Amino acid sequence: MDRSLNGVIGFANRRRRLAQALAARHLDTLLVTHLPNVRYLCGFTGSAGVLLVVNGRFTFFTDGRYRQQARAEVESARVVVPKGPVLDAATRAIAETTVKAVGVESDHVSLAAGSKLARTLRPKVRVRPTQGLVEELRMVKEAGEVARIHAAVQLASSLFDQTLAAIRPGVAERTVAAELEYAARKAGADGMSFETIVAAGWRSALPHGLASMQPIPRRGFVVLDFGVILAGYCSDMTRTVHVGKPAARACRMYQAVRDAQQAALEAVRPGRPVGEVDRAARAVLRRAGLAHYFTHSTGHGVGLEIHEPPRIAREQQEALRPGMVITIEPGVYVPGYGGVRIEDMVVVTTTSCEVLTPTTRELLTV
Amino acid sequence: MDRSLNGVIGFANRRRRLAQALAARHLDTLLVTHLPNVRYLCGFTGSAGVLLVVNGRFTFFTDGRYRQQARAEVESARVVVPKGPVLDAATRAIAETTVKAVGVESDHVSLAAGSKLARTLRPKVRVRPTQGLVEELRMVKEAGEVARIHAAVQLASSLFDQTLAAIRPGVAERTVAAELEYAARKAGADGMSFETIVAAGWRSALPHGLASMQPIPRRGFVVLDFGVILAGYCSDMTRTVHVGKPAARACRMYQAVRDAQQAALEAVRPGRPVGEVDRAARAVLRRAGLAHYFTHSTGHGVGLEIHEPPRIAREQQEALRPGMVITIEPGVYVPGYGGVRIEDMVVVTTTSCEVLTPTTRELLTV
Repeated sequence: MDRSLNGVIGFANRRRRLAQALAARHLDTLLVTHLPNVRYLCGFTGSAGVLLVVNGRFTFFTDGRYRQQARAEVESARVVVPKGPVLDAATRAIAETTVKAVGVESDHVSLAAGSKLARTLRPKVRVRPTQGLVEELRMVKEAGEVARIHAAVQLASSLFDQTLAAIRPGVAERTVAAELEYAARKAGADGMSFETIVAAGWRSALPHGLASMQPIPRRGFVVLDFGVILAGYCSDMTRTVHVGKPAARACRMYQAVRDAQQAALEAVRPGRPVGEVDRAARAVLRRAGLAHYFTHSTGHGVGLEIHEPPRIAREQQEALRPGMVITIEPGVYVPGYGGVRIEDMVVVTTTSCEVLTPTTRELLTV
Repeated sequence: MDRSLNGVIGFANRRRRLAQALAARHLDTLLVTHLPNVRYLCGFTGSAGVLLVVNGRFTFFTDGRYRQQARAEVESARVVVPKGPVLDAATRAIAETTVKAVGVESDHVSLAAGSKLARTLRPKVRVRPTQGLVEELRMVKEAGEVARIHAAVQLASSLFDQTLAAIRPGVAERTVAAELEYAARKAGADGMSFETIVAAGWRSALPHGLASMQPIPRRGFVVLDFGVILAGYCSDMTRTVHVGKPAARACRMYQAVRDAQQAALEAVRPGRPVGEVDRAARAVLRRAGLAHYFTHSTGHGVGLEIHEPPRIAREQQEALRPGMVITIEPGVYVPGYGGVRIEDMVVVTTTSCEVLTPTTRELLTV
């Protein structure tokens, strides 16, 4: 991404919201070490760098490999390429200010780095742990972000259609993943959002069944769970297809998951705690006698990262807000038999939600 | 990987060496949170779990998604699938023992998690930061590990040969990466070791030029830097080819990097500090007037991770030992003109080193 693309991103607005979030915590300084947060705040897309925010002034530290890239990408921040480690340089920069405390992202700085920072700055500057500060800003997406996510979702959906033909008995799961990822790259994806799951037959009962060398059996479910990254934004989708004619039990299982997903989609509404969406899916599966086999949560936020807040899970109280982009993905996994998961991405609207994933939820047989 | 493959891995030997490393630090308890270290010590290949070592007894904590996989893979450790977060469960388990201190991997536990652990266990148990404890054990590879790494290196090399034909003027860098990664998947790779670098023309001067949508120009260098993961072990190779007939300047640049790489290879010898290998490469480039353009270190260890100790860099004192597997990868990057990097993997032998990468280092033109 170069700066011309950044033009449509609301960096000024993000900085304003960051300033408010810092003020609410009585902080004037923040050391941003989590790369998706760095990207969100200043546009840098590389794999090494930290952003220092002091009284609204941004300084970005990166290493020699990224000198040219940082100059091309970074918005409204001074770019520094120090000789030694970037964290040491940022620490020195903090010491040179008059600030009394520096906020750190305590989920995204190691115990070693955090301790070294505190030791070096003591006693003049105190290190104050923060959690989810920038993530909270990222939770509600700007219109430009929703558009990018939508493009990533549409690309993934088109790949699903192209890949269906590769699902045949005897073909290794990994070959199906290869076809899918090849098509993604050729279509211009930055990469995959996560390791592609292709889980066939008994392996479909593994909620996290990475594509293996196992061949697709002559009959049974095949779970495909994958996503692409496009212009930095992730997509995530799951479809379960059936090889051969499904037995009545398989049809009932599929229908129950489909109904659970539909119920969860219908439960999405601004102001509602996310836990109620999870509960809607679980209630349908309970009536079908399958709740015991739904062993994970109903969904999660998606954006610059494949897993972001909110977590759509039991008892979670975070209220849905317009502009949140989340997955809805109930599943049922019967060990030794097979599994079904159906996953769409939706954006919360002012009244309910819009489903971004255009792929049919009918049970396809191949 | 299932347990039958673990059979050839020296878990008992690894545990013995871990016990010695802990004893040397007067520790009887270690909480292993870095997944490659977890895998090394107990065989688990999934993406979530922690290993607790108390007086030589191993307990592995993972979540519900990995119940079946952990039972199939984990060696000589009790497997626990707690209801809540695995770190909380491990913390409770520590509190139930009589130990006075627990070692943590301070580079691989967040400040938030480390602080919570210390708070919960205080005052009975003290949290003692450790760095590179298990990594130190992993630095010298067992024969079985070298064999796996060699297989990953050979696979990557065969992919290079297959992909050469895709490098043509007008083809997007990303399409070259797509062909390479597709061939890798079809050949059974678990995945790529890192994001594939295809950097053509002026972009070859970016040491970290991820494959972009830019087309291959009619003339100039193309740097390909990539690796595959096979049975968990990584490979890493770089070759630079030239599109069209290279100018005299390009030939001189290539030859200088090739000579620098050869000098570094010849400098590898057990007992020697790794910094001397780096110096050997730099000396050749200095004589060619190009040292200023060699902006990174000469190499790094490779194994379960793509970047492991030792770091083959200026002034580094770590002594080479038989069984270490490292890359040798000098490069020269002239902004606006182009860049050259040549990278092989080698295993240190009792007298010198064996080059694992079979690909020619001649300048290929396409």
